[in-house]
Amino acid sequence: MSLHPIRILGIDPGLRRTGWGVIEVAGNRLGFLGCGSVDTDDKAAVAARLVTIHDGLARIVADYRPHEAAVEATFVNKDASATLKLGQARGIALLVPARAGLAVAEYAPNLVKKTIVGAGHGEKAQIRMMIGVLLPKADPRSDDAADALAIAVTHAHHRRSAVLRAVAQ
Amino acid sequence: MSLHPIRILGIDPGLRRTGWGVIEVAGNRLGFLGCGSVDTDDKAAVAARLVTIHDGLARIVADYRPHEAAVEATFVNKDASATLKLGQARGIALLVPARAGLAVAEYAPNLVKKTIVGAGHGEKAQIRMMIGVLLPKADPRSDDAADALAIAVTHAHHRRSAVLRAVAQ
Repeated sequence: MSLHPIRILGIDPGLRRTGWGVIEVAGNRLGFLGCGSVDTDDKAAVAARLVTIHDGLARIVADYRPHEAAVEATFVNKDASATLKLGQARGIALLVPARAGLAVAEYAPNLVKKTIVGAGHGEKAQIRMMIGVLLPKADPRSDDAADALAIAVTHAHHRRSAVLRAVAQ
Repeated sequence: MSLHPIRILGIDPGLRRTGWGVIEVAGNRLGFLGCGSVDTDDKAAVAARLVTIHDGLARIVADYRPHEAAVEATFVNKDASATLKLGQARGIALLVPARAGLAVAEYAPNLVKKTIVGAGHGEKAQIRMMIGVLLPKADPRSDDAADALAIAVTHAHHRRSAVLRAVAQ
């Protein structure tokens, strides 16, 4: 549809480590632009750690100027305290791109795995391997950065139908 | 200790409604400055609702120029989905004052009730009544605004010992 490449920021939020990855999409072609993680000091106060995540993601948005963002819809586990921490980090991951005017999509972990690996319950290692196939130039140094790239690729595959649905309405 | 009045911002975070209250403390005297709530549209996307909370709280920080902030340490209930939503709103409530350079304290709901009502399990109505006694000029129009003022008063009572502990270290 679009001849201009679209840059997508994927985010895998976490209070200790928030993975991020930026890819470029032109038609069916994917390109790797960058990835990494924003790490926080687990001895610091939560408010200070959230500022670190905010400032890190804001710098990435400023550096890469993505057009759209995609965030992993958090896996809600049985530990309420962990869910709360994840929620706090996720709030920042949704806020930063939205404040910058980007559309923010959310994808469930199983849809990400299904899109990348082809099955609903792919392992971390399979995700990393497929990221290496889909984005040969990518060099994720953590699972969180690889997951963030997987979320961005998932959005690249699903955004077109989402855009068409929006246009049809 | 301090002759200069200190302004305290109390926040009771929630995705649907975030209560806020600002008080002034000079020695043992408390003064009411303002209170209200930031409400979000529950039909909007979560990212947009978090931007609403962010912008609302940022405007209050700009208008009242508080010196310190206090946020309710969220009650973690059994519903993981509700805990996640609360966590997202709470992330913003911690982020905004921290980014503005304010010290951010956290208080458990039971400590707030104990400080205001004198018992660990005060009802909402008791909190509102005591806020009327402690801050006669306050006009909270929601339980969330009253709770935010209660959190600010709790910080007024506990901050001195916290400051002394910090100085002694």
